[in-house]
Amino acid sequence: MSNDALADLAAQLPDDTLLTGGDAVEPYRRDRALDPAAGVPLTVARPRTTHEVQTIVRWASDHGIPLVPRGAGTGLSGGATAVDGGIVLSTERMREIRIDRGTRTVTVQPGLLNAELKAAVAAEGLWYPPDPASFEICSIGGNIATNAGGLCCVKYGVTADYVLGLEVVLADGRALRLGGPLIKDVAGLNLLKLFIGSEGTLGVVTEITLRLLPAPPAPRIVAAWFASIEDAAAAIAEISTTIRPSMLEYMDRTCIDSVEDVLALGMDRDAAALVLGGSDDLDPDGRDIAFMTDAFMRHGAYDVVETSPEEGAALAGARRAAIPAVERRGRLLLSDVGVPLPRLRELLLGISRLEAEHEVTIAMLAHAGDGNTHPLVVFDPADDEAAERAELAYGRIMSLAISLGGTISGEHGVGRMKRPWLRDQVGDDVLEVAGRIKHALDPAGILNPGAIFA
Amino acid sequence: MSNDALADLAAQLPDDTLLTGGDAVEPYRRDRALDPAAGVPLTVARPRTTHEVQTIVRWASDHGIPLVPRGAGTGLSGGATAVDGGIVLSTERMREIRIDRGTRTVTVQPGLLNAELKAAVAAEGLWYPPDPASFEICSIGGNIATNAGGLCCVKYGVTADYVLGLEVVLADGRALRLGGPLIKDVAGLNLLKLFIGSEGTLGVVTEITLRLLPAPPAPRIVAAWFASIEDAAAAIAEISTTIRPSMLEYMDRTCIDSVEDVLALGMDRDAAALVLGGSDDLDPDGRDIAFMTDAFMRHGAYDVVETSPEEGAALAGARRAAIPAVERRGRLLLSDVGVPLPRLRELLLGISRLEAEHEVTIAMLAHAGDGNTHPLVVFDPADDEAAERAELAYGRIMSLAISLGGTISGEHGVGRMKRPWLRDQVGDDVLEVAGRIKHALDPAGILNPGAIFA
Repeated sequence: MSNDALADLAAQLPDDTLLTGGDAVEPYRRDRALDPAAGVPLTVARPRTTHEVQTIVRWASDHGIPLVPRGAGTGLSGGATAVDGGIVLSTERMREIRIDRGTRTVTVQPGLLNAELKAAVAAEGLWYPPDPASFEICSIGGNIATNAGGLCCVKYGVTADYVLGLEVVLADGRALRLGGPLIKDVAGLNLLKLFIGSEGTLGVVTEITLRLLPAPPAPRIVAAWFASIEDAAAAIAEISTTIRPSMLEYMDRTCIDSVEDVLALGMDRDAAALVLGGSDDLDPDGRDIAFMTDAFMRHGAYDVVETSPEEGAALAGARRAAIPAVERRGRLLLSDVGVPLPRLRELLLGISRLEAEHEVTIAMLAHAGDGNTHPLVVFDPADDEAAERAELAYGRIMSLAISLGGTISGEHGVGRMKRPWLRDQVGDDVLEVAGRIKHALDPAGILNPGAIFA
Repeated sequence: MSNDALADLAAQLPDDTLLTGGDAVEPYRRDRALDPAAGVPLTVARPRTTHEVQTIVRWASDHGIPLVPRGAGTGLSGGATAVDGGIVLSTERMREIRIDRGTRTVTVQPGLLNAELKAAVAAEGLWYPPDPASFEICSIGGNIATNAGGLCCVKYGVTADYVLGLEVVLADGRALRLGGPLIKDVAGLNLLKLFIGSEGTLGVVTEITLRLLPAPPAPRIVAAWFASIEDAAAAIAEISTTIRPSMLEYMDRTCIDSVEDVLALGMDRDAAALVLGGSDDLDPDGRDIAFMTDAFMRHGAYDVVETSPEEGAALAGARRAAIPAVERRGRLLLSDVGVPLPRLRELLLGISRLEAEHEVTIAMLAHAGDGNTHPLVVFDPADDEAAERAELAYGRIMSLAISLGGTISGEHGVGRMKRPWLRDQVGDDVLEVAGRIKHALDPAGILNPGAIFA
């Protein structure tokens, strides 16, 4: 890459679009997965418009330079790890938002944060459901890239369920418009859904139209404290295959303990697990709340409490605070394996075994009602041997999930960190077919090389 | 094609798998779109297993013979029109079903009818929501092929929202397994959703795993009678962008009149439109019912009635009976155009204008809360001139929807009948990208040639 070529790109863009130089690009080298293999990018581009994105992608294509799209950098699988000599295309300045009450949709640029979108539509009495625990710091573009989930998804679905329209810049620089503010549209192949969850490997999403709902009813939340993780898993499996809770979350002792250190809510540090069950169905008889309470008790919870709205919100907040709280104990290797609900018990027990076997701490929290769990392997990064054991446990967690008929990623994406396990899960044929689609859309392989695809 | 080659295929399959000869293949030449360009197939294959499907597809591939997958033949866009000298692969014998309460899913072969699946899971207290009006006669495989919708979709979503797993036989005969009884899974590209709605152009679906819900609460249904279709459209747009009805359906005078001829429910044949609004949200205060009632009245309905459960079921049944009832008046050209909700009024008025302009009858019914409408152009097939005017009106309805920012198909698929309008809607770039994906998966173009792709 000659300096001339980069100067040529700079000349096509507003003055402060490109960052170059070690210090300037350093904050853009890694997402929250802290990929140790992160490269040093040639430049970080911070476009404001679709046209600027097209200019950058065309230039990358013309020069055969790899391009890594980046949202808010909160990814947990190394989907936004920088590549040596490549471009990081940060969407941080693409933050426009337009609410359309007539179609009850919102159209945004990808850099807007999930919480900013939620707040803007809430001001109009509307609701955007998907709520990753990181909603205050993650971008909508990143949510699209990973098909992000969250706490409400057990009832309200994931990001893809709300996307009606996308504008995507392809590897060749063309901007494709897919869908729009239409609720149903089956005209032609469903390219829209193909781009969702493709982690920037097929195109750069530059505009998103999302379906909104009316503000949800206030949930009632039951908190159940268990002395046994097996009992908690059994209660969860029964509840989520019998009723339709609006939330069904799980935290183990390490999470409770870590959050208690920070928030001091008076949670029982001796509990093996806390399960939070929510219902927002307006039933005056509270049948689902009663069903959950009964299921928790039948499955051996030692304490079951229907919370006040304030207590419920505090406990949901505790759940959201769990990852940063556990992170205070060391570096994390964060997984998001999922299993069919009847295998949740085996997954939890198997992870406990791995914890003992590899002499590591694995904190466990879960969007349990979806069978989607977040085992957090905690280690001291200064201790090389501990780091090695942690790496090993991280891989074995994924192998365990696969052996239980599960997935290596429920909502965070494969990125670079989980790629070595993808073939074990989906098999040669699926990878080969996916590779053909990748090649059809990005023949030179410039888009996010190393993520999902080798 | 030599007889030897066909004999070779027959030898690889159970005795009665293949049908040959004019009379035997005749019932498999057309779906309910009655495509006048239907060809005469070489043979109709009726496999029972995935392995048999693989044998048939491999043979077709080896001999370069086009293969048209066919469900129950209820398609309305000519997606299952036979091709001269090709194979029709009918899934009518692939009818196995396996309910798994542990994961609250059901796994079926594609030939099972939607109503059979609904009944089987209802016997276990479970619910499969998607409910095309044709649910009693359409197959799940066909529902997957078109990403079928229905009446409940305004609240509960479409077929794709319930598909957790698929087995698909590719053009080269490999069987791909995608997903499974996992609620969240983002490992790799979302191939699962790409196959849904692909109308048999990318592969033959041989097994489907569907997510189930608990049986729904009984809905309350409000019926509103309008003297003006504009007023009805305004009420619909307001309701569906303010609350979340469980049903919001529309029938015009021609539909009411036709259904009344058959069912004699005592509906007002002079009404310009009937709108049915449903709510199943358990709210003891019935706020959504009250909101709909008020909106209907504010927008000029001359009669608004909250129905008894029996009346409500009868009116929902009237809505489902509309297409066959109108069909008694002549041959139909059936469209399923959709528009953004604020444009529904313009669509309805525009179609009225087309009716006058082309001197044809266009009956109108709609999953109105989704902006998804079914204009039925009715004509006498014995009258060539009337048939020509009907054809013209059919095309202009699609052009009108496109001009309003809408789609040529909300839930029936493009098939062969709507293909000429697809480019106008999605544009050259989207078609080109879709074509690249088609080519990547079916390079010889043997799968359902003529559907979606030219």
